[in-house]
Amino acid sequence: MATPSRRFRFLLINPYSLAPGSTFRMGAADDGAKEARLPNYANTAPFLADVDWDLHPGAPATHGNWPVETKQEFLSVGANRLPLVHEACASGRYNAIVLLGGGDPGYMEAREIGRSHGIAVTSCAHAQMHVAGLLGNRFSIIDVSETHNMQMYHLVVQYQMTGRCASIRNINFPLPKPHLPDVQPLDVERDKAQRGEASPMLDAAVAEAIAAIEDDGADVILLGCSAAYWMQPLLQQRLQAIGWEAPVLEGYRCAIEVAKSLVSLGIDASGLAFPGERPARWRRKKVF
Amino acid sequence: MATPSRRFRFLLINPYSLAPGSTFRMGAADDGAKEARLPNYANTAPFLADVDWDLHPGAPATHGNWPVETKQEFLSVGANRLPLVHEACASGRYNAIVLLGGGDPGYMEAREIGRSHGIAVTSCAHAQMHVAGLLGNRFSIIDVSETHNMQMYHLVVQYQMTGRCASIRNINFPLPKPHLPDVQPLDVERDKAQRGEASPMLDAAVAEAIAAIEDDGADVILLGCSAAYWMQPLLQQRLQAIGWEAPVLEGYRCAIEVAKSLVSLGIDASGLAFPGERPARWRRKKVF
Amino acid sequence: MATPSRRFRFLLINPYSLAPGSTFRMGAADDGAKEARLPNYANTAPFLADVDWDLHPGAPATHGNWPVETKQEFLSVGANRLPLVHEACASGRYNAIVLLGGGDPGYMEAREIGRSHGIAVTSCAHAQMHVAGLLGNRFSIIDVSETHNMQMYHLVVQYQMTGRCASIRNINFPLPKPHLPDVQPLDVERDKAQRGEASPMLDAAVAEAIAAIEDDGADVILLGCSAAYWMQPLLQQRLQAIGWEAPVLEGYRCAIEVAKSLVSLGIDASGLAFPGERPARWRRKKVF
Amino acid sequence: MATPSRRFRFLLINPYSLAPGSTFRMGAADDGAKEARLPNYANTAPFLADVDWDLHPGAPATHGNWPVETKQEFLSVGANRLPLVHEACASGRYNAIVLLGGGDPGYMEAREIGRSHGIAVTSCAHAQMHVAGLLGNRFSIIDVSETHNMQMYHLVVQYQMTGRCASIRNINFPLPKPHLPDVQPLDVERDKAQRGEASPMLDAAVAEAIAAIEDDGADVILLGCSAAYWMQPLLQQRLQAIGWEAPVLEGYRCAIEVAKSLVSLGIDASGLAFPGERPARWRRKKVF
Amino acid sequence: MATPSRRFRFLLINPYSLAPGSTFRMGAADDGAKEARLPNYANTAPFLADVDWDLHPGAPATHGNWPVETKQEFLSVGANRLPLVHEACASGRYNAIVLLGGGDPGYMEAREIGRSHGIAVTSCAHAQMHVAGLLGNRFSIIDVSETHNMQMYHLVVQYQMTGRCASIRNINFPLPKPHLPDVQPLDVERDKAQRGEASPMLDAAVAEAIAAIEDDGADVILLGCSAAYWMQPLLQQRLQAIGWEAPVLEGYRCAIEVAKSLVSLGIDASGLAFPGERPARWRRKKVF
Amino acid sequence: MATPSRRFRFLLINPYSLAPGSTFRMGAADDGAKEARLPNYANTAPFLADVDWDLHPGAPATHGNWPVETKQEFLSVGANRLPLVHEACASGRYNAIVLLGGGDPGYMEAREIGRSHGIAVTSCAHAQMHVAGLLGNRFSIIDVSETHNMQMYHLVVQYQMTGRCASIRNINFPLPKPHLPDVQPLDVERDKAQRGEASPMLDAAVAEAIAAIEDDGADVILLGCSAAYWMQPLLQQRLQAIGWEAPVLEGYRCAIEVAKSLVSLGIDASGLAFPGERPARWRRKKVF
Repeated sequence: MATPSRRFRFLLINPYSLAPGSTFRMGAADDGAKEARLPNYANTAPFLADVDWDLHPGAPATHGNWPVETKQEFLSVGANRLPLVHEACASGRYNAIVLLGGGDPGYMEAREIGRSHGIAVTSCAHAQMHVAGLLGNRFSIIDVSETHNMQMYHLVVQYQMTGRCASIRNINFPLPKPHLPDVQPLDVERDKAQRGEASPMLDAAVAEAIAAIEDDGADVILLGCSAAYWMQPLLQQRLQAIGWEAPVLEGYRCAIEVAKSLVSLGIDASGLAFPGERPARWRRKKVF
Repeated sequence: MATPSRRFRFLLINPYSLAPGSTFRMGAADDGAKEARLPNYANTAPFLADVDWDLHPGAPATHGNWPVETKQEFLSVGANRLPLVHEACASGRYNAIVLLGGGDPGYMEAREIGRSHGIAVTSCAHAQMHVAGLLGNRFSIIDVSETHNMQMYHLVVQYQMTGRCASIRNINFPLPKPHLPDVQPLDVERDKAQRGEASPMLDAAVAEAIAAIEDDGADVILLGCSAAYWMQPLLQQRLQAIGWEAPVLEGYRCAIEVAKSLVSLGIDASGLAFPGERPARWRRKKVF
Repeated sequence: MATPSRRFRFLLINPYSLAPGSTFRMGAADDGAKEARLPNYANTAPFLADVDWDLHPGAPATHGNWPVETKQEFLSVGANRLPLVHEACASGRYNAIVLLGGGDPGYMEAREIGRSHGIAVTSCAHAQMHVAGLLGNRFSIIDVSETHNMQMYHLVVQYQMTGRCASIRNINFPLPKPHLPDVQPLDVERDKAQRGEASPMLDAAVAEAIAAIEDDGADVILLGCSAAYWMQPLLQQRLQAIGWEAPVLEGYRCAIEVAKSLVSLGIDASGLAFPGERPARWRRKKVF
Repeated sequence: MATPSRRFRFLLINPYSLAPGSTFRMGAADDGAKEARLPNYANTAPFLADVDWDLHPGAPATHGNWPVETKQEFLSVGANRLPLVHEACASGRYNAIVLLGGGDPGYMEAREIGRSHGIAVTSCAHAQMHVAGLLGNRFSIIDVSETHNMQMYHLVVQYQMTGRCASIRNINFPLPKPHLPDVQPLDVERDKAQRGEASPMLDAAVAEAIAAIEDDGADVILLGCSAAYWMQPLLQQRLQAIGWEAPVLEGYRCAIEVAKSLVSLGIDASGLAFPGERPARWRRKKVF
Repeated sequence: MATPSRRFRFLLINPYSLAPGSTFRMGAADDGAKEARLPNYANTAPFLADVDWDLHPGAPATHGNWPVETKQEFLSVGANRLPLVHEACASGRYNAIVLLGGGDPGYMEAREIGRSHGIAVTSCAHAQMHVAGLLGNRFSIIDVSETHNMQMYHLVVQYQMTGRCASIRNINFPLPKPHLPDVQPLDVERDKAQRGEASPMLDAAVAEAIAAIEDDGADVILLGCSAAYWMQPLLQQRLQAIGWEAPVLEGYRCAIEVAKSLVSLGIDASGLAFPGERPARWRRKKVF
Repeated sequence: MATPSRRFRFLLINPYSLAPGSTFRMGAADDGAKEARLPNYANTAPFLADVDWDLHPGAPATHGNWPVETKQEFLSVGANRLPLVHEACASGRYNAIVLLGGGDPGYMEAREIGRSHGIAVTSCAHAQMHVAGLLGNRFSIIDVSETHNMQMYHLVVQYQMTGRCASIRNINFPLPKPHLPDVQPLDVERDKAQRGEASPMLDAAVAEAIAAIEDDGADVILLGCSAAYWMQPLLQQRLQAIGWEAPVLEGYRCAIEVAKSLVSLGIDASGLAFPGERPARWRRKKVF
């Protein structure tokens, strides 16, 4: 803990970049200004107002030209992202790295890199889970598909959050894959919902959030896949209109704000949890 | 979650105020500018630079004219502090309340008040435990005495943090009580340590932090009693000098930074965890 | 553990006393003989037959002239009750203090006081949870309102009973407050039910107890708010008539019987869990 | 829960009886008055003053003519004891059965029998663990040997008490077996200790109790094997003399007092936890 | 761990044998070749192809001439089976003992015996739970009756598997007892189902398995009572036909395969978990 | 579950292959017969006697030309190994894949691949932990360095084994890196130990295993890094010589034997835990 940095210098890194021709477009241009390229920029902009920030488009995807959902795909994009984290840490240009994407690919490993440089690294699922802990007793995650659900499950276990996770709720709007039908594109759902039209995806999220509250004991709602983050304000409004006072979170803002906290406090990660190659001291035992 | 507030307006409230004549003085004047009255101001000042803040001296203690350590005393000062929280929330002058003091008296109840006004309330132990969760796997709390230890124990249980707390370590420097001998005043220890002289209190904290790391599995160190918060930078240096890369936290800065995060994110607490008198909707069941 | 006391000398302390004019009357006169002032006396009398007992009406409420439901109110009445516990312990007249009321205000702190005098202190929720542990694997709590539910939730966590609590079930019969409508007064429900007439409150309790058994895995049923304790024999009968062999408990009898056990065994509380101001010995660490 | 029985009618059943010629004698005559046959009668007598009680010597041991320590032996004596429980319940003479012996052989099964007759059954380890829960946060068990330790381990798991058990501590004074050397007979230790002479067994218990308190986090001490129950008052005195305020329990008194509580409250066990052959209602699911 | 045994020599032991006249016949002849006497032999035969095996009919039942369901009955047959385990281990003819039967009577004790001979002992419920852990996150047990469910509950607790058990699901087809009606004999259900006719028992199992998957979070299905093991291939097919990719296990094959693993690896059980009478070394403490 | 395969056809895949010039050689030739290339072949050979097996040398390392220890390195080799798993599953030549290496790189993802082909995948740490569960209550892992310890920590959490892991014990013999001193090469230690000479590495393993048993409550010992698997028979002998009856496991044999069990039982992984891209059915919720 040290004097807070007066100025935040963050690199935001997308989980991966798809090649031209992918049918998956979540509302961000492929090129142009960073503002145009950041999904849900309007929601995120105020949180970046006091930040000097760059946006990295993500390492080119090598698993295929479609968004990630399976464990294999998450492992692949995680591994591809690490060199970017190394480079960013070594550049001296940033005091925090914000990993975008809902399933946190490469996050634990990126923290290890960040620790060796004294640079904080945050990610969307982990940050949401921690903010949820400041608000209530148990959270549920509203998420898009079976495979993506199991990645969120993996993260809840890995982050030792099972005692706080009431459930992962599936709205079953899987991400598009060129070799599979895509009957309900998420960007179409988003556009409908943002125009005030009925969106089966948003309706499903409302239904599952209510089930999470009434049946599973959730008092805070998180969003799993970043392709569903656009629902945050709309889902919050819908719950409020019904009378359920459950905060709804999404990942970008949580990851940015947690990064600010860490930078201000002058901390990044415990060197015992993320040791360097040959640490000055070693422990005879680790316990759980 | 909403647009981040451009400006933080915080009220910091001491846990209680003692009457003139108390022998307990932790480095803050009783009157004068707020800066002079805030303990450890030098360490905290940078974190308040972007905050419009007031400092309330705390409700006059009714349990006796000595610092709190027992459960009874914590309950008493907690109850005494709530009217201040009510008043501050109702005043419309603040967007967050930061409860000072290591044992979090009245914190859960103050959050209930804050929730009804949509105002975030943070406190030193809870904030430290949450920040610790961002850094490593398990924390230990270095604390001053048997009775105060058991208040920290109570908090770890109440906050459902038992799975993350490696241990509470006692350095046995109890707070002064006029009816008991006070052979090792904490302010004397602080002054010695800050002058670079040997301090048995700081030495005990180093010894217990090492034991927490080596024997209990801690990878982050918290400080329990606010009267020990002055040790944070010194204990951090001592551990680093030995080679243990374990972050050391204290409560003021954590509580302030967590308050900023909540205010920025436009959230305070779940209305399901802290329901109002007759909430719009009610749940048939709650589970753990 | 020592020779059992041949005679029990107990002080029963109400959680608080309301001023004349409160609309809340749970079947006990404000003055007259102690028997007339103890709610549900008929159910409780046999358990007091071998006890020399006094009934304290409780400290006058300072939170308002209505029954407690919120965390703030519980903290307030808890703090107000402690001087009575001190006085009773110091009087030498009692070998146990039985704290009446469903939400256990001031219980942990009162145990600290009792410990310093070697006097057992029991309370209704804690005693019920312990008796439940003698009977089955998991209990559910039938309780009256959202806010009161969350107090029970708080207690289950604080008593480290989360692993045994299947659920808290809400029948949504909130306690009266003068500034809020009171469409279903609890004493009216009680009188109807005790006359053998249909009571929506009792019916709701039956429905939630069945749901607790069938859906949540409860095998013992507790009652949360003391204003619902009158339901115990009726709820027990209803479940038996249906064929569910789940014991139904309430707080007064459990708290009295647990007090007898402790007095007989010559124990009150562990001095390590509830240490005195400067205990003879101190522990370097506490773990969970 | 019903009107408390004015009079307790208990059958105490030894875990087993050895044939003449066994070298194991724990201070009770084989015949004569029940008072002479009950081990540690002087300590237990006051707790039986308000009880009409009989003492059954236990079913003749079929595992061998030595005290039980291994899992096989516990299973054997447990099975042998059940017909006695059946007979006692069917006789109509008792309102509770108190199973003597430290390792609770046949206890869960005896509760099933008791439930079908509406008769409470208590046992020494289970009762101690429950009383410990009324006193502090975590208990340790001081016990006599590796094999007996693992029976206590088995019980802690079976009773779902792992979260409350700080440790089982072995003093390594195994019970005698005719085919093995018996260099430190427990009755010799007892007699020495009760005469005020040095007893290595008691000294070991003191040492392990201190280690349990200082290293394992225990705040209540239990005794495992009934052949060690005689140490309770002496161990309590030794700890008090050192300054450790940890209650020390033993099984006879706890089991008797818990039986009184259950009889007074008119309860025995949940019919859902211990269902009869074809219960009136059945549950579709059970959860943990 | 040592060189794998080239040849498996197993004794399979039934949980008990009923006298002639029992109405309970689960598809195995009372005499004749071992193949004719082993229930579900067709399903099990391939797993025994590389095993030299004997089948013991089980000790004659002494609890009554009906199958076991209650805790008392399980304790009785467990105790009766131990001498067979002793004898088999001492014979030197076997390198593993496979305990047949769904509720694992005498299993923990038999492992103690096996350990003292260096011979592996496996049992059906324990083996299934371990295999389930190799396949997914949480299992549910489909089982036959209230009393048998509670035996399975007992085993899940005893094996410290509560964190992995999503639920025990009751299909309510209790085992026959001569003094109770037996309207739906299990062998009739089996024969109907195996002929391809509708079986209410199998239908109930399908319904409860689906509920376990959809409501309780199970991803692997176990069968509780061995009298329901015949359902394994049929239940697996039914789930697959519906589209649920949840493995369905049963006990015989799991217990046999686990025995092979242990024999191959040259291990049986930890001597610390199952110590001998006077082990070479003893531990000062055991923790959980 | 189906008829056991009469013949096992396994592909063993090394975690990675280093380029010529690496100083790390754990006893296996780079080329030649598979037997010569498999580390610790003498110990493993008997377990492969009934297996048609191939050995893949592993994907060429891209993280550097040294063995893996850090999280980044594990992620890298895990991602590199997945195409080999794909190819092997698609080839139709194998009915199980055995992933060699102590830290299980790519294991969870490889199971997802295997599931889609109906092919079992096993790995060394996971297999050891499961076998340990068949033997005792709690295991400890003896491991080589801080960074590798934290990978094992990660696995224990991910596999939801924290309740069974007593500790991870560090012997501090880190793996060689060309840019760091390598004062105690592991192959030198191995050769010394196997010649019967004193080996500080083996001595450290003995010391930490004893500490795990005496202090942490372990009753089974696992080995973390595959570069330490050679110690298994020697460590087992040393513990036995001292009198500690704790089984010592290593990964190759456990992974091979678990693979045999799964192949015999005709199962690989739950399709709910490892769903395919668009599974036939989806679940509304997942719980923990």
